[in-house]
Amino acid sequence: MDDRAGKVTMQGAVCPLPLPHDETIILGHGSGGKLTHDLVRRLFAPAFDNPALRAGDDAAALDLPAGGRLALCTDSHIVTPLFFPGGDIGRLAVCGTVNDLAMVGARPLFLTAGFILEEGLVIGVLQRVVESMRLAAAEAGVLIVAGDTKVVERGKADGLFINTSGVGWVPEGRRLSGNRAEPGDVVLVSGALGEHGIAVLTARGGLQLESDVTSDVAPLNGLVESLLAACPQAHVLRDPTRGGLATSLNEIAAQSEVCIVIEEEALPVGPAVEAACELLGFDPLYIANEGKLIAMVPQAEAESALHALQSHPRGAGARRIGRVEASPAGRVLLRTRIGGTRVLDVLAGEMLPRIC
Amino acid sequence: MDDRAGKVTMQGAVCPLPLPHDETIILGHGSGGKLTHDLVRRLFAPAFDNPALRAGDDAAALDLPAGGRLALCTDSHIVTPLFFPGGDIGRLAVCGTVNDLAMVGARPLFLTAGFILEEGLVIGVLQRVVESMRLAAAEAGVLIVAGDTKVVERGKADGLFINTSGVGWVPEGRRLSGNRAEPGDVVLVSGALGEHGIAVLTARGGLQLESDVTSDVAPLNGLVESLLAACPQAHVLRDPTRGGLATSLNEIAAQSEVCIVIEEEALPVGPAVEAACELLGFDPLYIANEGKLIAMVPQAEAESALHALQSHPRGAGARRIGRVEASPAGRVLLRTRIGGTRVLDVLAGEMLPRIC
Repeated sequence: MDDRAGKVTMQGAVCPLPLPHDETIILGHGSGGKLTHDLVRRLFAPAFDNPALRAGDDAAALDLPAGGRLALCTDSHIVTPLFFPGGDIGRLAVCGTVNDLAMVGARPLFLTAGFILEEGLVIGVLQRVVESMRLAAAEAGVLIVAGDTKVVERGKADGLFINTSGVGWVPEGRRLSGNRAEPGDVVLVSGALGEHGIAVLTARGGLQLESDVTSDVAPLNGLVESLLAACPQAHVLRDPTRGGLATSLNEIAAQSEVCIVIEEEALPVGPAVEAACELLGFDPLYIANEGKLIAMVPQAEAESALHALQSHPRGAGARRIGRVEASPAGRVLLRTRIGGTRVLDVLAGEMLPRIC
Repeated sequence: MDDRAGKVTMQGAVCPLPLPHDETIILGHGSGGKLTHDLVRRLFAPAFDNPALRAGDDAAALDLPAGGRLALCTDSHIVTPLFFPGGDIGRLAVCGTVNDLAMVGARPLFLTAGFILEEGLVIGVLQRVVESMRLAAAEAGVLIVAGDTKVVERGKADGLFINTSGVGWVPEGRRLSGNRAEPGDVVLVSGALGEHGIAVLTARGGLQLESDVTSDVAPLNGLVESLLAACPQAHVLRDPTRGGLATSLNEIAAQSEVCIVIEEEALPVGPAVEAACELLGFDPLYIANEGKLIAMVPQAEAESALHALQSHPRGAGARRIGRVEASPAGRVLLRTRIGGTRVLDVLAGEMLPRIC
């Protein structure tokens, strides 16, 4: 992989090499892991370069001409199957975008919904998905204010894809970003890991996997407001979706140029997710969540932050899972139950395609 | 079609009947015409109902908590082929969203880009598309501030779909909307009709259509600023994309409850588009444009508005094409060259699928 990750120094700056133009897209480019980062860093980022994009957060935070600060984000949803235990593509589309806004401290206000429908899709399926979007939007307190519908011929799409983009309002003084983790910060997670990915996998059938795991897909903006009321100095929030906890922590370690040390013993993983992962050879730290957040907060506010999370229904299973250190910068280390330490890298390749 | 268009009166209000849940999506649901309207009115609108969505304009205009007014819109792009004379899916994705913002009088500021890629797509193709987006964004003066990439398995999408959503700033005092057309308003169009649709069709091959029509795809925000400087009281702007001029005029006639009367003789259609339409049995009034706008302006400002359009490179072919009257409300009438009058209805079914 050395040639892919290659860099050249140009006019003093470190510029990533462009991707070879005759290579092809593989599923791993959509995993949220190494190949996705590579595509972003070597193709999209150089073309669209600007400070908001460069920040690399879940949503862009933007100053408006007349004052005030907006957050803006987008997410396309291609999950298969469309319905799974605990949710469906509609609930996922609304919650995913609400959560991306909440992770930069924004209050989600408005969503757009862009539908790509495959010819032959049954109207009743679309009605169920739209009803689920309606309920999720009401739960999150956001309005769906603009939409678009396109239809492609039978065989040219897979039933139904939904893009949701979102706008939120960033209250004065909030400056949450993945680049603000500091040595000494405490790392919290709001609950059990891996439920969304395993629930979707179970719904696919074919794997002979019997499990009663339901997806955690839920809007987290209420939880974030409770957290920030108790802990206004929080540095980083992120929802560990594609690529799971391990990938999100690596993104933050790279953005903030810090080391994040996680205690394996402290990680909340439910028995059903653990059993499914053992059976399938997966690591729950790389499985997608859609209703959990990671918070990095100053030591002084850690207790009140944890208490605020645990006092909210969406954060009842919150735990302190680790700590930010100065070095080795850009690394995530896992202290194992037996006292060893290993590097937790970002997801390489693709483990579970089309999970969101 | 009577059962599709059926209405029931519920608690005094006229509510559209829901769509039959066992029907299926057909290509016409994505045409921008009758079936798209039906899907929006009977499925999406009742579920997501709110004042911004109800306005039915190209972009939602939204009041911010701290004052000021935003415009927000979304558009998914599924054009085939990806490259066509005068443009490609990337230029289309940027310009389409910039134009939707401009049509409510907003200054486009920020775009998001959501990519759905098919496994096997050649990186070089994606690079060309992204470079084209970069150039179009620079031309329009907007920043692409957030993105998302998903990958689906070979055969589960058609190469590359792009969603672009956009945020614009609505300057104080601008209240453009499709519901503001008034009897006495003059109807202007900024140039020749049908070029985008015919260019894409030509690029498809297989139709033995030889033509040198190039797509008009272009950002119109500069043209709109020139127009509004000369004509601050403009009532309606709209870019006649899917469904063409006839469909856009019908939308406005319905929103404003007015009659729009168009002079066939005044309609600008280039000879190459006219020839292609004659050959294929199409009506250029239903063919998509991606770089033209319709304006409805008070009689008193019509001359200066027309002059402002014609003085701008993107509006050099602008013409006065008709007039708004009081009745029959909701109708678009065409006064033909030979002195007759016929009703111009919205596009029924699908003429050219996957044009944008």
